[in-house]
Amino acid sequence: MSSVARVEVLNTGTELLFGSVINTHLSFLAQQLFPIGLRVQRQSTVPDGDSIRDAIEEAATRCDAILVTGGLGPTSDDITREIVAELTGRPLRYDDSIFQKISERFKKRGLKMTDRTARQAYVPEGATVLPNDCGTAPGMYIPERNGIPHLFLFPGPPRELRPMFKTYALPLLRSLAGTHDLHARTYRTTGMGESQVERMIGDRLLAIPGLELGYCARMGEVDVRVIGPRSAVAAAAELIEAELGPCILTTEEKELEEVVVELLTATKATLAIAESCTGGLLASRITDVPGASVVFIEGNVTYSNDAKTRILGVPAELFSTVGAVSEEVARAMAEGALQRSGATNALSTTGVAGPGGGTDQKPVGTVFIGLASRGSATLIEQEFFPTDRSSFKRICTQHALEMLRRKILFPS
Amino acid sequence: MSSVARVEVLNTGTELLFGSVINTHLSFLAQQLFPIGLRVQRQSTVPDGDSIRDAIEEAATRCDAILVTGGLGPTSDDITREIVAELTGRPLRYDDSIFQKISERFKKRGLKMTDRTARQAYVPEGATVLPNDCGTAPGMYIPERNGIPHLFLFPGPPRELRPMFKTYALPLLRSLAGTHDLHARTYRTTGMGESQVERMIGDRLLAIPGLELGYCARMGEVDVRVIGPRSAVAAAAELIEAELGPCILTTEEKELEEVVVELLTATKATLAIAESCTGGLLASRITDVPGASVVFIEGNVTYSNDAKTRILGVPAELFSTVGAVSEEVARAMAEGALQRSGATNALSTTGVAGPGGGTDQKPVGTVFIGLASRGSATLIEQEFFPTDRSSFKRICTQHALEMLRRKILFPS
Repeated sequence: MSSVARVEVLNTGTELLFGSVINTHLSFLAQQLFPIGLRVQRQSTVPDGDSIRDAIEEAATRCDAILVTGGLGPTSDDITREIVAELTGRPLRYDDSIFQKISERFKKRGLKMTDRTARQAYVPEGATVLPNDCGTAPGMYIPERNGIPHLFLFPGPPRELRPMFKTYALPLLRSLAGTHDLHARTYRTTGMGESQVERMIGDRLLAIPGLELGYCARMGEVDVRVIGPRSAVAAAAELIEAELGPCILTTEEKELEEVVVELLTATKATLAIAESCTGGLLASRITDVPGASVVFIEGNVTYSNDAKTRILGVPAELFSTVGAVSEEVARAMAEGALQRSGATNALSTTGVAGPGGGTDQKPVGTVFIGLASRGSATLIEQEFFPTDRSSFKRICTQHALEMLRRKILFPS
Repeated sequence: MSSVARVEVLNTGTELLFGSVINTHLSFLAQQLFPIGLRVQRQSTVPDGDSIRDAIEEAATRCDAILVTGGLGPTSDDITREIVAELTGRPLRYDDSIFQKISERFKKRGLKMTDRTARQAYVPEGATVLPNDCGTAPGMYIPERNGIPHLFLFPGPPRELRPMFKTYALPLLRSLAGTHDLHARTYRTTGMGESQVERMIGDRLLAIPGLELGYCARMGEVDVRVIGPRSAVAAAAELIEAELGPCILTTEEKELEEVVVELLTATKATLAIAESCTGGLLASRITDVPGASVVFIEGNVTYSNDAKTRILGVPAELFSTVGAVSEEVARAMAEGALQRSGATNALSTTGVAGPGGGTDQKPVGTVFIGLASRGSATLIEQEFFPTDRSSFKRICTQHALEMLRRKILFPS
């Protein structure tokens, strides 16, 4: 059996081509494959139905393994398993243990099974079943045959695919891939633009033999990605760390909120949040991190002026004198949250998210971000992020988390 | 010149295959194309470099137009324009007006132009330039030639591609597409599983001539999508509305939070939120909706027990008798938020998001959701969603919003 080096991803689902769902599978799968030395060389999306067959046959000429998502459900447009059975010459067999597992799941949830559900218990002969711990349709691994490369079939819903991939597919893929000397490191940096980062380190990184280099500018961040043999990545790491120092958020694929929760935990500090324009997103990002309850006391989404006064003690006269979107209100919100919660740090946001509500003095995109901390002066930063509503919320929370990260790491 | 019916999307960019960036182009382009009667029949992602040529040649055998994203920048791996010039037999020509526009942009921002920037001023002979109002690299439309279909080239960054597409590419595509009788409707339903929905309506929908039918199961929702000529879609709509009635959230591409904010606005009702396990996500979803400030009073992310008591008035003895994750605490949180905020409705969530914190009686995935409303009894629903932390947060907020939607639409 040949070992796996070239991998393609095939996403099936009319809803992906219709635009109502964003495809997050490629990103997830690529990030999972990389540590075992595999890269995705191409990805395609095809509608439910017969084009799945064409796409598998085309990919078969280019790669050693195809990861297929979708088309394993109970409904009539779910025909991936039939197509794969035919292409690989492996007839479908009924697997009673799958059926029993599905019935059990339905029973536990008090749902009624329909006749169609039983379709999900059929698998091609010789396939390895990948159990679905978060749903009904199991996945499958089908070894190469008939000129068709190794196939991995996964259900479409990400919450089912992701644990299945990690627990059951990754070990199989690891053994198929064999040994490798492919390494990667991504540095998440903040505080500089892409061209500035490139000017500082670009030429010297490109001079390292075997190193592949990539930049990715995101909201409030620039990622620097290096790929190559271990020695090349190590040389790059040394250079990047020396040059970019305090601008590096993390070298792991970690979100800023994870970094902040870790720093708070390590320093036995706690956090309260008072949000207006970010509307709960800041608290939600913090509480996305497992273990956040150790450091996160409370969040106050004081959207109305009345709530700002009642919950945080913001003086009501500020709304008529300087307005809700102001340095003074950001300060009073952060200090009010600090005092009332008993936390050691409190972040606040107040701004104009748009599309309505902008004025000449305070156009859409204006925001004030506050950070009150025990034993030091409250910090207020005014920023201007004129963009759509949800990007605005996101970039404001990024800025707030970064203020807190720097405060903990570099206390004045 | 043949008219355009079959469209493919080709995304180029190593960063997409590396997984560090999620591809949102397909979703955007598909949603833009549909109203002019065009559908994306296939989408591919290839790395920067020569595979772009292979992918264009393959797609040429299947479609009338290819929308290509990425590879138009100033750096050495941006070679889309050279490949296209060669494939279509249209040599690259220097366009001084593009160069002037780019220089102006650099000057305005106080940036220095590099030699490479000038590459972006070269376009294939006979191409129509699509101006870039939000960046430097212009897009292009290249009419079919040499067996290569109509090509539209766009820059990779979404903030540049999106306005360019709407303003300059869409009108061209509309005239190439001609008239059409392609219509679609998506029903977002809730409260039933995918196979149950199909059993109720599937066979009768499939019997409608010319109708294309698709299902998509999402967290707490099943979407039913019908596509076809106007008459077929109308027949399907009648059947679906009669059968699924109150389970239909919306027939538009709307999020549940938008439906809820609209219902609150229309009924002059207001909302306060008291969250524990959903950690701010519920407030964040509500505040994602433009105009939410009219109906949303405040959110309280009372993560600690102390915050639940101090901010919402939850009796402290409940934590030792029934525990924070209980019907009683969900009730006290909702009623406390209702009373203190003065809102007409208050939602609460308390549960075990995991991965830690589960017990035998209250395993990870347990949640109590409360809805207190003026003039009626408080509703509490206990649910069990054993999944990962962020899916748990999402599905709990979905359930809470749905409780509120039903309460407003069908008051008891």
